[in-house]
Amino acid sequence: MIKILVDCFGGDHCPEAPVSGAIAALEKNPDLHLLLTGDENLLKKELEGKHYDSSRLEIIHAPEVIGCDEKPTDAVRLKRNSSMMKAIIMLRDCDDIAGMVSTGSTGALVTGALVRLGRIPGIIRPAFCPILPTMDGSLVGICDSGANVEVTPAHLRQFAIMASLYMSNVYGVNSPRVALLNVGKEAEKGDELRQETYKLLQETPSVNFVGNMESRDLLSGNYHVIVADGFSGNVLVKTTEGTALQLLKKLKTDIYSRTVYKLGALLMKKMFQEEKEFMNYQNYGGSVLLGTSKVVVKGHGSSKASAVEKCIEQAYRMQLSGLSEKIESEIARYEHYED
Amino acid sequence: MIKILVDCFGGDHCPEAPVSGAIAALEKNPDLHLLLTGDENLLKKELEGKHYDSSRLEIIHAPEVIGCDEKPTDAVRLKRNSSMMKAIIMLRDCDDIAGMVSTGSTGALVTGALVRLGRIPGIIRPAFCPILPTMDGSLVGICDSGANVEVTPAHLRQFAIMASLYMSNVYGVNSPRVALLNVGKEAEKGDELRQETYKLLQETPSVNFVGNMESRDLLSGNYHVIVADGFSGNVLVKTTEGTALQLLKKLKTDIYSRTVYKLGALLMKKMFQEEKEFMNYQNYGGSVLLGTSKVVVKGHGSSKASAVEKCIEQAYRMQLSGLSEKIESEIARYEHYED
Repeated sequence: MIKILVDCFGGDHCPEAPVSGAIAALEKNPDLHLLLTGDENLLKKELEGKHYDSSRLEIIHAPEVIGCDEKPTDAVRLKRNSSMMKAIIMLRDCDDIAGMVSTGSTGALVTGALVRLGRIPGIIRPAFCPILPTMDGSLVGICDSGANVEVTPAHLRQFAIMASLYMSNVYGVNSPRVALLNVGKEAEKGDELRQETYKLLQETPSVNFVGNMESRDLLSGNYHVIVADGFSGNVLVKTTEGTALQLLKKLKTDIYSRTVYKLGALLMKKMFQEEKEFMNYQNYGGSVLLGTSKVVVKGHGSSKASAVEKCIEQAYRMQLSGLSEKIESEIARYEHYED
Repeated sequence: MIKILVDCFGGDHCPEAPVSGAIAALEKNPDLHLLLTGDENLLKKELEGKHYDSSRLEIIHAPEVIGCDEKPTDAVRLKRNSSMMKAIIMLRDCDDIAGMVSTGSTGALVTGALVRLGRIPGIIRPAFCPILPTMDGSLVGICDSGANVEVTPAHLRQFAIMASLYMSNVYGVNSPRVALLNVGKEAEKGDELRQETYKLLQETPSVNFVGNMESRDLLSGNYHVIVADGFSGNVLVKTTEGTALQLLKKLKTDIYSRTVYKLGALLMKKMFQEEKEFMNYQNYGGSVLLGTSKVVVKGHGSSKASAVEKCIEQAYRMQLSGLSEKIESEIARYEHYED
């Protein structure tokens, strides 16, 4: 039995989305056991009339909610009875719980996980790794995408190792092609951080390093892992999502501007729905935090039930694949790291 | 008469694109005089049979070409007879020449311009400012987008001032809304560079600073100038272009996959053409280098004639608006800057 906590408050569609997502995940995975954190009365009400295996679903009462505007350090320190912090603390204290999923405040989740959970032995800094779909139908993971705005080459090498293991173990990518986000393809491009990281990645047998990537090639399908500092990685991911969303919105507005376009769009309805689904980040699960001692998956704040379900599946597959142990043993190969 | 140099070699469609672009620009602007640099024989051959006012078009013989893979410092030092370096040197030496346009190597152009042209008095570092179209039909300038991968808050403040003046003087934007690229909207987000820059921009009356911008909002139309270090600014611009291009490509492939989609697309042909034009960066001119003593416009390497024409128009409008003088007098208001 794999036990996973689901933080049911803090996202835009709470508690409906986490509760329905949890029920759907339970149905698909008979060896999954979920613990929902949040206000007991509200959760009970939400579960009313729904069908699920009650022997594999528990409610953990945690009446407080962390808002998106709250200062992460304050939230971690003062809101121990919040649905998120309660989950983090239980995850730390209970050996039989494998991981947690949350759609709440990213800052509070990262801070809480780092402070309370600790890291996989050898890992200097945990990092976020969201997944995007590429144009050839494959997936690309971007690590880090925001947990660390300031990094060293040693950090970036660890991000490369962790994200490679994640893509191969959880998504079945064989020898993932890893690239370093840079302003040009040549080895000497970028600042000192990029130049040194380039050399370090070349000397890292655990990583199938294929060189620098310019950001316009992210969706090309040529890469499975992009290594980046948390600042530019965040820009990379959010710009991609933002551009796709804005363009779809523009297409929609333009279609409605003329009857003949509406007619054309009617013929293409199925295709447009597929495009929309393709670009919908909710279909690709959440952003996993790699390097913490236990599994942490962060879903978008706007996650609906199916997105939460995918986050739970991710946590489940991460645990099932023994990812943490594999990261630990691979990192141990590189003893001489600097912090 | 406004004199502008056009580097006719180094881009993908050379010399056809620069030569045709130059002729088109001459036709539209009777007080424009162009000097084309490059191999005299090749340029003469390209001009053969074309109609243009030969009293306003000169050829400057420069037989060498700088390749995209050449090391910028070597190119600047060793290729003085290249079409690009010849243009830079003439621009420096001739008081009556206002600016230059090139579609050649970005690295060589930046290095050459910084080494040979010098800066507007008071400017610490020149910076690139490309323009992107937003979803509400306005434009947004991103400064810096790659000339400086390492910067200080003082640099970023100057980028904000220069880009604001550029957007208001060349594109007629009234009191441009300036935002700082960051990983979140709140003032305390990001690293020390971002936090200090935020404070500095708040204390800068020359700039209509509206706060941090998350990269997913770039195309929203809410901002006219985005201030960024050259690394993340480069990621911002190239990710936007890359995502738009990849999505258009995907749409096209999907349309061709079924007859009914092809039929629908036929009804929407005009709309799709407009979308394509809207997303075609060639329609928005080049990336201008702000802060050099003379006007420098860098067109995409893939620029066709109309894109080169737009770059020439940009250089022309920059000179006509007296942008350099305005930058100099505005920068002088802030005496206490650190390098």
